[in-house]
Amino acid sequence: MSAYDDLMAFQRQTEALGQVAGRLGWDQETVMPEGAAGQRAEEIGALESVLHARRTDPRIADWLATAMAPDAVGEAQLRQIRRSYARTSKVPARLAEEIARVTSLAQGIWAAARAKEDVAGYLPTLRQVVDLKREEGAALAVGGDPYDALVDDYEPGMTGAAIAAMFDAMRPRLVALRSAVLAAGAPKGLVGRFETEGQMALTRELATVFGYDWNRGRIDLAVHPFSSGSGHDVRITTRVNEVDPFNCFYSTIHEVGHAAYEQGIKADYALTPIGQGASMGVHESQSRSYENQLGRSRAFTGWLFGRMSEVFGDFGIGDAEGFYRAVNRVHAGYIRTEADEVHYNLHVMMRFDLERALIKGELDVGDLESAWNDRFRADFGVAVDRPSNGILQDVHWSHGLFGYFPTYTLGNVYAGCLVKALRSDVAGLDVKMAQGDVSAATGWLRDRLQRHGSLYLPREVVAKACGFEPSEGPLLDYLEAKFGDIYGL
Amino acid sequence: MSAYDDLMAFQRQTEALGQVAGRLGWDQETVMPEGAAGQRAEEIGALESVLHARRTDPRIADWLATAMAPDAVGEAQLRQIRRSYARTSKVPARLAEEIARVTSLAQGIWAAARAKEDVAGYLPTLRQVVDLKREEGAALAVGGDPYDALVDDYEPGMTGAAIAAMFDAMRPRLVALRSAVLAAGAPKGLVGRFETEGQMALTRELATVFGYDWNRGRIDLAVHPFSSGSGHDVRITTRVNEVDPFNCFYSTIHEVGHAAYEQGIKADYALTPIGQGASMGVHESQSRSYENQLGRSRAFTGWLFGRMSEVFGDFGIGDAEGFYRAVNRVHAGYIRTEADEVHYNLHVMMRFDLERALIKGELDVGDLESAWNDRFRADFGVAVDRPSNGILQDVHWSHGLFGYFPTYTLGNVYAGCLVKALRSDVAGLDVKMAQGDVSAATGWLRDRLQRHGSLYLPREVVAKACGFEPSEGPLLDYLEAKFGDIYGL
Repeated sequence: MSAYDDLMAFQRQTEALGQVAGRLGWDQETVMPEGAAGQRAEEIGALESVLHARRTDPRIADWLATAMAPDAVGEAQLRQIRRSYARTSKVPARLAEEIARVTSLAQGIWAAARAKEDVAGYLPTLRQVVDLKREEGAALAVGGDPYDALVDDYEPGMTGAAIAAMFDAMRPRLVALRSAVLAAGAPKGLVGRFETEGQMALTRELATVFGYDWNRGRIDLAVHPFSSGSGHDVRITTRVNEVDPFNCFYSTIHEVGHAAYEQGIKADYALTPIGQGASMGVHESQSRSYENQLGRSRAFTGWLFGRMSEVFGDFGIGDAEGFYRAVNRVHAGYIRTEADEVHYNLHVMMRFDLERALIKGELDVGDLESAWNDRFRADFGVAVDRPSNGILQDVHWSHGLFGYFPTYTLGNVYAGCLVKALRSDVAGLDVKMAQGDVSAATGWLRDRLQRHGSLYLPREVVAKACGFEPSEGPLLDYLEAKFGDIYGL
Repeated sequence: MSAYDDLMAFQRQTEALGQVAGRLGWDQETVMPEGAAGQRAEEIGALESVLHARRTDPRIADWLATAMAPDAVGEAQLRQIRRSYARTSKVPARLAEEIARVTSLAQGIWAAARAKEDVAGYLPTLRQVVDLKREEGAALAVGGDPYDALVDDYEPGMTGAAIAAMFDAMRPRLVALRSAVLAAGAPKGLVGRFETEGQMALTRELATVFGYDWNRGRIDLAVHPFSSGSGHDVRITTRVNEVDPFNCFYSTIHEVGHAAYEQGIKADYALTPIGQGASMGVHESQSRSYENQLGRSRAFTGWLFGRMSEVFGDFGIGDAEGFYRAVNRVHAGYIRTEADEVHYNLHVMMRFDLERALIKGELDVGDLESAWNDRFRADFGVAVDRPSNGILQDVHWSHGLFGYFPTYTLGNVYAGCLVKALRSDVAGLDVKMAQGDVSAATGWLRDRLQRHGSLYLPREVVAKACGFEPSEGPLLDYLEAKFGDIYGL
């Protein structure tokens, strides 16, 4: 056995154990008995400590020192292992444990503060998290920019400055679009009740239509929809609200985007370091293009209108065009997770600027609420009415997730580029989608992007798939064209 | 930290990881997508290799050398750790791996041979397994009896000779009872279809009636019913056959017996070496007493007749007495897992004698089929018609489970003793059970036996609960009285 083979065999077991940890998380959110929570925490803790010991195993350094990759795929495997090992080696164990401890408590403190609209009760905890993440960023950056180092965790190769340049270019056009759309008045929404059974039957059909492989997956209910697992076992969840069926359907299509990515990766890569999606941003580009550019297109909603009418009868919308408008209704609101395509990126860009300033030390935690509220008024045109609709709405920072938010909009930007390329490559896409056939689109994404897993860096795999360097242009053009048309701007 | 504390902290993580492995098994049998089987095998393999490394960790020997137990509970913890460590240390790694490899293949070979009625194609594999288990037994016995060493794995403190003495005393009375009952003619069975939904609703009710804690468990469907997990997450499965509702109901009650035992163990013992049932035999004593002595009693079936009539309407049985007879119908048959209370132990005793002779080297694998068939004719009065109804019916030996079979009948024997003691302790049991209230019985079992987990040795915990030394007498008296009454002998 060569050093490369030894290392890959070791990694394979680590990847398999990582899948087990993910499966425990799935179990916890879907089927676990309520009284098992405490014991489950110990089970996950025990497994995480096994995983941590493996990821910091000093033999990895020895293997890496002499391992010779047999080919380009092997090079990518070593690159992934080097990345992960360097990261875990740079952060002192004491700091890693402190971050785990503080963020674990912070989530409970955040939830309690949000319930009581108690910003003052939350800020000391947030300050602790920010301080620890600044320290971690500095340790990872080794003299470079700490925020860049944190971003790199979720989006290898991306920097805060590159994101800022992109977001700064997007902001004025989105603010202008938002304002014009809201001034134009809202289209009609759905009326009536949509029984759970019918929603679940149609949501399964939608998953199938978008190429979900049921032989390697399943769908269950959970409070927050998610996709879980890689390779041959990639499960999704959805939720049902009987007055808002779009919640269920578009959550499912979104999660199928994530799951189809994992299922679409070359089978040879399963349980290897490159056997997962390339980054959070690329992952989100799949879920967002499935959900929005494809799922909320005029062509596809035409088919969905027919199916929903068959399943649920009349729901107060007379034709496919009215249905398309209802699906793409733009509404003012405070909450990111409820935002439409026009508002969503404004939320993300604002969090990015704020968290970057916090990590750079340019914004003090004590000034965060007023900075949030000022920016919200500037971009959304209204004042935040209460902290749970403002600074306290997201759990991310309490989890220590700094550098994660921008990947949502990066995903949208990549989705804009990918679907532009897809549409120029594949003729007759809308004709097929109008018949409920999305396979040409999902097949193109699988062949061009998904199958590579983490073989290439995130921006690289998107550029290869598109045939051009990704930029914010296609997304903005798409949004302005689509909503300009719907709202007659 | 003392050596004892260090050792217990280490064990706690091992126990937690053991629970994770069990959870993967549950997932595989209930919810796992079909295409995930190969990947799951790798996941389980990775976790098992972590567990094996922990169970053979040389630090355990160091800790054991100096650990001082703080009290009697601590003594029991150390006894369990010593047992497990001595066992894993005595078996050479090479032999353990070979057994794992051969038995893993043997299960597939057995299934194929059973489907083709191909004894000759199976025997070479069985011979390999027997040879390996003889070698393992010799390694464990260190000069003692190899079969005793294998039995001790499932039933600490029990020996082949003690079991043989007990079984030899049981056999003539059971053969006589079986023959008299079959001569008396069969009672009427149920007719009609019993919808899945109604069966599942009633099976959940039965689980509740028998004290299953839903806050720490759940019920799902699986091909073979089982109970899985310890402490705060103990799940059960059942199955549904629309023409045979007893299959579902009594499988559920049986598995609730196992699960209630695990759920009934003192909460302090969770994730510690004594935090699981004392042995396979004691476990089976719980499932068997729940299922048979309680669940198939005249009193309880009286209540069940009423509930089944409410749920399913008429099913061809006119009164509670006829229903009691239908539940306790004795029928000739070849298959152990389908056997009634009268036939069941005859199956087990026969396998015990045969497997003990194989391990002792007194029976050659080549002579096993004729030995099986001769014994079957002697005890059951008919000839085996084909290998899948004879020597090829059970998977146990292919799994390497030698020494396991007798624990089924030991469980019945212990159940006979426990329910005898219970009935003499608790007045009015039948009056309550006739109203669907089994709590006095399950509460007695929990207080007297279940809560102790593995604090005491198996026979010891049964004797403490009963107030007398366990023997086969109460079980035989119970069977002769019950079936003598039903069949008018």
